[in-house]
Amino acid sequence: MSGERALARVCAAALDALRRSRPLVHHITTEVTSGDVANATLALGALPVMASAVEEVEEVAARADALACNLGTLTPLRAEAMVRAAGAAAARGIPVVMDPVGVGGTVLRTETAARLLAAAPGMIVRGNPAEIAALAGASAQMRGVEATGGPADPVAVVRALARSTGGVVAMTGARDYVSDGETLVAVDNGHPLLRRITGAGCMATAAVAAFAAAGTPALVAAAAALATFGLAAERAAARASGPGTFHAALFDALDALAPDDVANGARLAVLEGEMRWT
Amino acid sequence: MSGERALARVCAAALDALRRSRPLVHHITTEVTSGDVANATLALGALPVMASAVEEVEEVAARADALACNLGTLTPLRAEAMVRAAGAAAARGIPVVMDPVGVGGTVLRTETAARLLAAAPGMIVRGNPAEIAALAGASAQMRGVEATGGPADPVAVVRALARSTGGVVAMTGARDYVSDGETLVAVDNGHPLLRRITGAGCMATAAVAAFAAAGTPALVAAAAALATFGLAAERAAARASGPGTFHAALFDALDALAPDDVANGARLAVLEGEMRWT
Amino acid sequence: MSGERALARVCAAALDALRRSRPLVHHITTEVTSGDVANATLALGALPVMASAVEEVEEVAARADALACNLGTLTPLRAEAMVRAAGAAAARGIPVVMDPVGVGGTVLRTETAARLLAAAPGMIVRGNPAEIAALAGASAQMRGVEATGGPADPVAVVRALARSTGGVVAMTGARDYVSDGETLVAVDNGHPLLRRITGAGCMATAAVAAFAAAGTPALVAAAAALATFGLAAERAAARASGPGTFHAALFDALDALAPDDVANGARLAVLEGEMRWT
Repeated sequence: MSGERALARVCAAALDALRRSRPLVHHITTEVTSGDVANATLALGALPVMASAVEEVEEVAARADALACNLGTLTPLRAEAMVRAAGAAAARGIPVVMDPVGVGGTVLRTETAARLLAAAPGMIVRGNPAEIAALAGASAQMRGVEATGGPADPVAVVRALARSTGGVVAMTGARDYVSDGETLVAVDNGHPLLRRITGAGCMATAAVAAFAAAGTPALVAAAAALATFGLAAERAAARASGPGTFHAALFDALDALAPDDVANGARLAVLEGEMRWT
Repeated sequence: MSGERALARVCAAALDALRRSRPLVHHITTEVTSGDVANATLALGALPVMASAVEEVEEVAARADALACNLGTLTPLRAEAMVRAAGAAAARGIPVVMDPVGVGGTVLRTETAARLLAAAPGMIVRGNPAEIAALAGASAQMRGVEATGGPADPVAVVRALARSTGGVVAMTGARDYVSDGETLVAVDNGHPLLRRITGAGCMATAAVAAFAAAGTPALVAAAAALATFGLAAERAAARASGPGTFHAALFDALDALAPDDVANGARLAVLEGEMRWT
Repeated sequence: MSGERALARVCAAALDALRRSRPLVHHITTEVTSGDVANATLALGALPVMASAVEEVEEVAARADALACNLGTLTPLRAEAMVRAAGAAAARGIPVVMDPVGVGGTVLRTETAARLLAAAPGMIVRGNPAEIAALAGASAQMRGVEATGGPADPVAVVRALARSTGGVVAMTGARDYVSDGETLVAVDNGHPLLRRITGAGCMATAAVAAFAAAGTPALVAAAAALATFGLAAERAAARASGPGTFHAALFDALDALAPDDVANGARLAVLEGEMRWT
């Protein structure tokens, strides 16, 4: 069995664990894509709980199996809710995932990302090349919340940010990169139609949170989530006639994907270090 | 004509009344599913108006034909808006429907549900088994906002809550139960795919509000709404290949359903008391 | 070449300019349809950036190619954000578009519309007949946020509002009217299914903002946007079996429309003055 097939089998086992445990994922997310995030979470086999009031997020996060914080349409109140929820989750060892939407683009988002990283050290970060570069202090081109040009050396940026946060970093693009600072994995699943809908990144983040919620270690959870989500996108694209029907088909595909499909369809490569899945 | 067929014809007449009167329904709802709620309201033949600012909800509610309050992604400000709108509606005899999303799960939601019940006595409550049990003071299992185990005796819980609120209670699940404390009706329409999308409960609540807005008495409105919504789900499922295409097909089915379809397809049974539809 | 064909070619050229420049559109919009607005913006070929916090809107607006403000589910805080963003955009000559959802229906919305008109003089306004009538001080029937009866003389109302604001006004309905106070254009593309989904008006506004963001002058941008959006609706309707599948097909159609399709399918007529597209 080749190394790539072995990695794909690890991803398949992670999906199997997710389907069996049906974990609860607490999302504090943007109003733009919150329905998509909840539906992607359900389609993958996890249960979403959406709560973002400062008054209740600690109660909710403390009972969840993972917390996902998304910086889209951020407000100071929502930022405060995220920081409190992240603290409550971190105190209990519950995995925390951050989607730093638009970080580097406004002071509010940049400051909130820093507060979240401090509140839950070792968290998982899932972002586009410009967002990961901004967090890593590298330069990249951005227009609004879309990365229009990635950093010159994506591998170096992902590795550097993972080392500085002490957690796992996932940068998604034509090729995805996932690193814990030692091991670096590339994921080649996905489809260009993901760039033609809003919320694709948010849903990828939701997938990472769902896999981590099932107890899969962060590096494997992130890689397995991106391979699974990308594979679902490939299948949805085959049934779609544009971004609108692709969007609907994406939930069908996430729901229908079996662990064996992932074992056969995931395309991963270890670029640095070695993958430990125990 | 059997009793079940007579009930189905009552539901058909209620849908006909809804289509003819095109009532206005004011929704104060969660950001997660507000688009779905508005689209379901439109597809059923009513007009949605979405307004949730404390500064304007009383103006809006006073001119609507029904008010629906949904506790998803609740904030203290939105709770205050709901309480004010419910008071304005109740003062004018406008039907009020509450969807107690996640009640029992956080202090904010439990307190808000109690405030709403006090603001609009005799309102309609539409919830899942865990939410209805929590409001009734019974115990049930819940994970996030999903009921994972219903109360031991659902009929007793629905009846008890209806008696204590003086209104109508609708508990949805594999079998739906609707009661005004005297009469108790079971509705058997629906499809398991409803559990695979977010917003199914919110849309069921929107359906109840739309039927009540057309002037149909609360008990019949709730039963007719759940039968109609469940029947639409059955038809949508027949055209779907997963939760994403089901979601889109659900609006097509709600829009296409004619009163005759409901007369032929609604499956209801009176378990206690008798149904009065005048 | 007839006058209508010449106008259609102008619209086609505007779509071509939009596709080539891929402009950035800042949306401050309602939570009900924000996902639809972002997806329509992407499908047309522009990039959406959604940000509505008072603390960051000026930073975001100042870097965008157009700003679109939508008064749905308005709050005082969001109103303040819109006013600040509109001021920042106007100061830099960035086109501003307002969708006055529900104006005339509540004090908050009426006051906010007036504040926005003052913050960005000469802006583009896109609304339904009741909203445009309310802004123009004419009378029209409205239920919630739906116009149920238009003003008696729509052409006069559109012209009058355009003259009083010094900008461009677009009133959408079975026939759309666009005016800068001198020239008045009618657009006859569209489909009745647009009235069966929520967000159709919001997406039409997003289309106007996207065309204006590409540097097309306001009058032509508004007319071209409504013709393009209406044409996409016609094509989507041909593939739909109801409002749910229409909704998904609409994004496919927006994405697939080529400038040549617009040159052949746009249906416009100049009712007053003459169209200048340079």
